[in-house]
Amino acid sequence: MSILVVGSVAFDTVTTPFGEGKEVLGGSATHFSVSASFWTKVKLVAVVGDDFTPAHRRPLLEHDVDLGGLVVAPGRTFRWVGKYGYDLNVANTLDTQLGVFAHFSPVVPEPWRETPVVFLANIDPDLQADVLDQVRGPKLVAADTMNYWIDSKPESLKRLLARVDVVLMNDAEVRQLTKEPNLVRAASAIRSWGPSMVVVKRGEHGVLVFAGEGAFALPGFPLEEVLDPTGAGDAFAGGFLGYLAARGASKPWDARRAAVVGSVMASFQVEAFSLDRLDRLTLPEIRERYERFRELTAFEPLP
Amino acid sequence: MSILVVGSVAFDTVTTPFGEGKEVLGGSATHFSVSASFWTKVKLVAVVGDDFTPAHRRPLLEHDVDLGGLVVAPGRTFRWVGKYGYDLNVANTLDTQLGVFAHFSPVVPEPWRETPVVFLANIDPDLQADVLDQVRGPKLVAADTMNYWIDSKPESLKRLLARVDVVLMNDAEVRQLTKEPNLVRAASAIRSWGPSMVVVKRGEHGVLVFAGEGAFALPGFPLEEVLDPTGAGDAFAGGFLGYLAARGASKPWDARRAAVVGSVMASFQVEAFSLDRLDRLTLPEIRERYERFRELTAFEPLP
Repeated sequence: MSILVVGSVAFDTVTTPFGEGKEVLGGSATHFSVSASFWTKVKLVAVVGDDFTPAHRRPLLEHDVDLGGLVVAPGRTFRWVGKYGYDLNVANTLDTQLGVFAHFSPVVPEPWRETPVVFLANIDPDLQADVLDQVRGPKLVAADTMNYWIDSKPESLKRLLARVDVVLMNDAEVRQLTKEPNLVRAASAIRSWGPSMVVVKRGEHGVLVFAGEGAFALPGFPLEEVLDPTGAGDAFAGGFLGYLAARGASKPWDARRAAVVGSVMASFQVEAFSLDRLDRLTLPEIRERYERFRELTAFEPLP
Repeated sequence: MSILVVGSVAFDTVTTPFGEGKEVLGGSATHFSVSASFWTKVKLVAVVGDDFTPAHRRPLLEHDVDLGGLVVAPGRTFRWVGKYGYDLNVANTLDTQLGVFAHFSPVVPEPWRETPVVFLANIDPDLQADVLDQVRGPKLVAADTMNYWIDSKPESLKRLLARVDVVLMNDAEVRQLTKEPNLVRAASAIRSWGPSMVVVKRGEHGVLVFAGEGAFALPGFPLEEVLDPTGAGDAFAGGFLGYLAARGASKPWDARRAAVVGSVMASFQVEAFSLDRLDRLTLPEIRERYERFRELTAFEPLP
């Protein structure tokens, strides 16, 4: 089944100790869409400026992402300038130019309003709620957020969480939102507000999924080359939800395999700048890395 | 087979957001010994002052740790005063009083010199080398270290590493020693200096083992109560080596199960101050948590 994603499409200028990407295609909805496209059909709702060219559309179209909800507004596309040090877990934002994104008011095209799986990428929680007001009877709704919204709109965010099934956040955000340093208790608190599943992203340290009675933990894949972590969280979300959507998004969700698939997609994402790695990724490579995750984490019972 | 451990026995005064331990029994050799004692016989070489009472010996003796190498010197036992904030991964040292430890020159009792497994806990790498000069034909030698020795005695440390089979360090130390931010490449560098196995401890994020051709990664156990992380690394080492020693320390080492056992012991260690949790731990509890690690990390192949 298909996925509706609402989020940002941006031009990123990123510097890491290993290189630079200048005004490369980025944004949460972009990375999510390309990642999820390996698993299912993706419909994208976002806004870009009149500086967004056919060349920018190409990688999305080549991955069969439906751009029927990509509005072109007069002005400039959202730009982000960021830098990473050797601790690739921490992004330092140097500049943000919202451009046409400042007045983004997402409209879900009428034929898309019954899309069964909805991903609300990291945007203003009030806009995320607006999207939910437009869709009808989704089977599975997932949302991402960030520290900026936790600081500035905590009440809007909590109201939104009451309406979503799955929330994806990084560990610092989970602690910040709940004011609880212990992740197990923090995830319980968030689940008491609505989401039946909390996915805690931990960068190079992997992912922790709280769902049902138990937790699932997967370490990060130990990579020899990490060029740029930008988009890793969105690529994770794309793999995670893409896999669940491909499997029918029925309960009990196949959350463990989905978390591994998400981690596989994120592990490829960071191997290059922008969409460079996912753009040339193949399904056999994805399956092979999934198997390598199995080898990485396997151990026998005690004798 | 039995283990010889050389390291510190100390009185710790520890403050965490969840309580305080005042002059409680600590030290790397102490935590290691009690943890390893669940798996095999442990012989301890260390020095204490004349303020070390029979009450301090009790928990070690009750775990059948052989104190035949515990020298009592005139003066005060090593004292450490530390504090943890909500980020329990970072210990802030407030005070260190070496006491009799300042003149520690480890002597391995003659009957212990053929002990097959040797653990060199975190002390001066030149003293660790002295211990290796005294033992005869060990089957398995493992060593721990810390940032202090990496800064002050990097060459001594590298010479030591050429003589050990297994090195256990935390991720920051691995990066500091090798000046290589990427853990995969850093572990390769260390293995090129001698150790066939590098165990990277990552605190709440678990552990990464580089041995043979592949890597093994285990996430940390998501605990609802963490009172005091002091001794977690030593408890890990005790479980890790204790298990290998119990299995005969023969190659190919059963490193994956050993890393899980180490993680189980560390997960109990942090649930209370000092030795309080390990002191009342039982083998069925250890086996049960091992099984919970299996549940935590299990996932199926892709369909």
